[in-house]
Amino acid sequence: MCRWLAYQGKPCFLDEMLHQPNHSLVMQSMEASKAVTAVNADGFGAAWYGEKPTPALYREVLPAWSDANLRSLAQHTKSHRFMAHVRASTGANTSRENCHPFNVKNWLFMHNGQIPEFERVRYQLERQLDEPCYLKRKGTTDSELIFLLLMQHGLDQNPKLALRRVISMIEVEMGNKGINDQPFKAALCISDGHQYWALRYASFGTPPTMFYKSVDSGVVLASEPFELDRHEWKSIPAQSFVEMVGEQVTVTEFHIA
Amino acid sequence: MCRWLAYQGKPCFLDEMLHQPNHSLVMQSMEASKAVTAVNADGFGAAWYGEKPTPALYREVLPAWSDANLRSLAQHTKSHRFMAHVRASTGANTSRENCHPFNVKNWLFMHNGQIPEFERVRYQLERQLDEPCYLKRKGTTDSELIFLLLMQHGLDQNPKLALRRVISMIEVEMGNKGINDQPFKAALCISDGHQYWALRYASFGTPPTMFYKSVDSGVVLASEPFELDRHEWKSIPAQSFVEMVGEQVTVTEFHIA
Amino acid sequence: MCRWLAYQGKPCFLDEMLHQPNHSLVMQSMEASKAVTAVNADGFGAAWYGEKPTPALYREVLPAWSDANLRSLAQHTKSHRFMAHVRASTGANTSRENCHPFNVKNWLFMHNGQIPEFERVRYQLERQLDEPCYLKRKGTTDSELIFLLLMQHGLDQNPKLALRRVISMIEVEMGNKGINDQPFKAALCISDGHQYWALRYASFGTPPTMFYKSVDSGVVLASEPFELDRHEWKSIPAQSFVEMVGEQVTVTEFHIA
Amino acid sequence: MCRWLAYQGKPCFLDEMLHQPNHSLVMQSMEASKAVTAVNADGFGAAWYGEKPTPALYREVLPAWSDANLRSLAQHTKSHRFMAHVRASTGANTSRENCHPFNVKNWLFMHNGQIPEFERVRYQLERQLDEPCYLKRKGTTDSELIFLLLMQHGLDQNPKLALRRVISMIEVEMGNKGINDQPFKAALCISDGHQYWALRYASFGTPPTMFYKSVDSGVVLASEPFELDRHEWKSIPAQSFVEMVGEQVTVTEFHIA
Repeated sequence: MCRWLAYQGKPCFLDEMLHQPNHSLVMQSMEASKAVTAVNADGFGAAWYGEKPTPALYREVLPAWSDANLRSLAQHTKSHRFMAHVRASTGANTSRENCHPFNVKNWLFMHNGQIPEFERVRYQLERQLDEPCYLKRKGTTDSELIFLLLMQHGLDQNPKLALRRVISMIEVEMGNKGINDQPFKAALCISDGHQYWALRYASFGTPPTMFYKSVDSGVVLASEPFELDRHEWKSIPAQSFVEMVGEQVTVTEFHIA
Repeated sequence: MCRWLAYQGKPCFLDEMLHQPNHSLVMQSMEASKAVTAVNADGFGAAWYGEKPTPALYREVLPAWSDANLRSLAQHTKSHRFMAHVRASTGANTSRENCHPFNVKNWLFMHNGQIPEFERVRYQLERQLDEPCYLKRKGTTDSELIFLLLMQHGLDQNPKLALRRVISMIEVEMGNKGINDQPFKAALCISDGHQYWALRYASFGTPPTMFYKSVDSGVVLASEPFELDRHEWKSIPAQSFVEMVGEQVTVTEFHIA
Repeated sequence: MCRWLAYQGKPCFLDEMLHQPNHSLVMQSMEASKAVTAVNADGFGAAWYGEKPTPALYREVLPAWSDANLRSLAQHTKSHRFMAHVRASTGANTSRENCHPFNVKNWLFMHNGQIPEFERVRYQLERQLDEPCYLKRKGTTDSELIFLLLMQHGLDQNPKLALRRVISMIEVEMGNKGINDQPFKAALCISDGHQYWALRYASFGTPPTMFYKSVDSGVVLASEPFELDRHEWKSIPAQSFVEMVGEQVTVTEFHIA
Repeated sequence: MCRWLAYQGKPCFLDEMLHQPNHSLVMQSMEASKAVTAVNADGFGAAWYGEKPTPALYREVLPAWSDANLRSLAQHTKSHRFMAHVRASTGANTSRENCHPFNVKNWLFMHNGQIPEFERVRYQLERQLDEPCYLKRKGTTDSELIFLLLMQHGLDQNPKLALRRVISMIEVEMGNKGINDQPFKAALCISDGHQYWALRYASFGTPPTMFYKSVDSGVVLASEPFELDRHEWKSIPAQSFVEMVGEQVTVTEFHIA
């Protein structure tokens, strides 16, 4: 289980959320408090939008806490919309290509969760990628695959519908292989450079946590509060689809069938 | 264009071939003399057999000349059969997963050459992998794909036939896409832990170089001589299939049709 | 606080101690049970002796659990005397040069512990290195400095005396700076390629743990047992100097004054 | 011999100088045209000033051409004053700590050149560092040492005088060791976040090259032109001290005695 955060609002330095808070994302890389795995040290990534439609992307295989480059970049980079992710592998290698966020053109995607027994359904799912999306695959994670399937199934037209279609495809493949006792789980976040969409979902049982908070300069969405004092953080309910436009957070129910 | 070597014979320290000679493989990583690209600094790998059927594998994204671990491992590791490769990327990322040799079970594979315009035929070729072979893919190189296709098409039964089948498949796909003006090229080397097979081939034109030499302790096969005095090195002719059993090197013609 | 182990006996594969046991060193890199810091993910190192007087050394900045090279090397490398270390930084950067074991000629050194407020005494202590030892410094850790001071003060003549001298020097510098409320702490291990010496010591209070166990093939010394069933592991008492020659473990008291 | 560039002027994207030109710095990392060593692949670094007095710093051990992070950062980062460096080691390890630029507070320093037979004078020179400067040393290069000596000898008061003092100290130590047949050589560049100072100097013989050019948006100083068409590039004469304030480049003679 990974940890991530997504911010949008007035431009602020990345380290104001990544390093400075008293339970910052970088601290969560060593000791997350609401996670199945406490240590999220199988690489990390940060991405931020500036004046171009495409984002800057920095990913590295080190634990986030030990990377001096991340510290310096976060101290000196200001953005009005940025994402960061600390990774705990659910099986795939530790390589930059397997670190979140994943980026295609102006799109970013990051994820906490998993396709259970991914290796058993990977072949069938990857064969459903068309050639242009398939060629964008650089790593071997289930997360990157979900992103590319979303791209192919209308993410840029209707993100909620694309999510419904893709998760449905995944659950069908899981069913085909008799993977019925473990749920597909996702706390994922997407941006096109203008806004965020997020999902908190599990086939059954409890999905990975997701919280948001209005801060002075904007809004932040995160796997868990980056402050020890959590009382201003609102939990996103399970089976929810989130839209975050400007400082407006809209939460609606999300169901597959 | 990459550079590689393969040794078998009496156990010797890896650095006797990787570092000590006056035009060693590690020197070739900075300045190869017979190569299209002089610099082979997009990662490297070494693999060696010991008492187990599977080999040890060490791959890293640094240039071979700047890796202190490689120097120490090569100085202290003795093997009767080892391979090493310094990489010049023809397009794919610099990641450990894209470094040669590639390993599946007891098999090793390394390669200098390329499928021209690989991105145009990659989708079609990867879809020809069956599920077990597909799931072994960790990187995005044409070389790893060739290896997995060989595994699927009888490498363990008849290596020469497997090579003929797979190269034929590749050339057919190239033809389908109208890639007729550039040849498929390969100087590749394979081991199962007991012997070597190698191929020097191009669809047309001149394939990448390959040489061999009998040394006191055994035989070495290499992209280019690792000595400035080359007179004891024999060039493998173009369109040749090589079998290396013990100190016996057998070269036969290799044609597709 | 770091975690380490040292083995000597009949040649065995490194992974029999590094990966296979049910509380192996690599598992301890993610979750040590007797440590101040549970996570030891700021790099790692392994070193082993073979037929040369100098050891092979492999160090990397990744967490030990996520390094595929370590797994392969440990599965395929056999040694009669090897050390391994997983690091939790007490301040110095995560770089290969700061990973243990440290090696000079035939000597190896690794350490769990620290000079408290090292930056306050570092200048004075490093100035006590003579030129040959000073020039061997590659990193910035207190551990490497202790090793080089030991080299300079007769490690190859009388290890126990060298330890007494060097720790005394360190404690004097600490006193000069008024660092009296925190102890110097060490659980360290040294080899010359023929045997081990180890120390469990603190200026006051409890030093870091150290255990040993006789296994079928030899003896292992470690920061903590690598098995969940700990009953055959013997704890080394605080303020002890250990000599390990063959399978013989001799523990004597160690005091500075 | 390394390669570097320094820009100041209207904010522009780093890749406009690092990647886009037809003989860009990143291309020079693979094939420099005016250098002793053609390959500059022992790590790289980039640093840029924004709205804070301190700069952002990104350094990595990979060859510059193979780092996807550098490409993305350079495409998306705009700065009015930035430096970048591709390294060819003259002996020191390939580690991030040994990559240029070096940074202390608001200061940046990068260097092409060397103290000949550095290991013979290193001990004497490092002992001349006072405690605050000594404690800032993180790596083992001659370049970082020169920077710290400059900090200690009045870089922030009078850069030209500080350079004269420090180079004099270095040449004295070289003389003490009888290193008379090889010159100290430097093409170095310094910034405090407001302007640049640079030096092209050798004890005797020809120092490493340095050029500058006025571009539409500002001025660039570089080891060699980053364009194949070099006719608008002006060579800085040997034994010169350069001040670059705004778009004004002032070149004065530089002599030690």
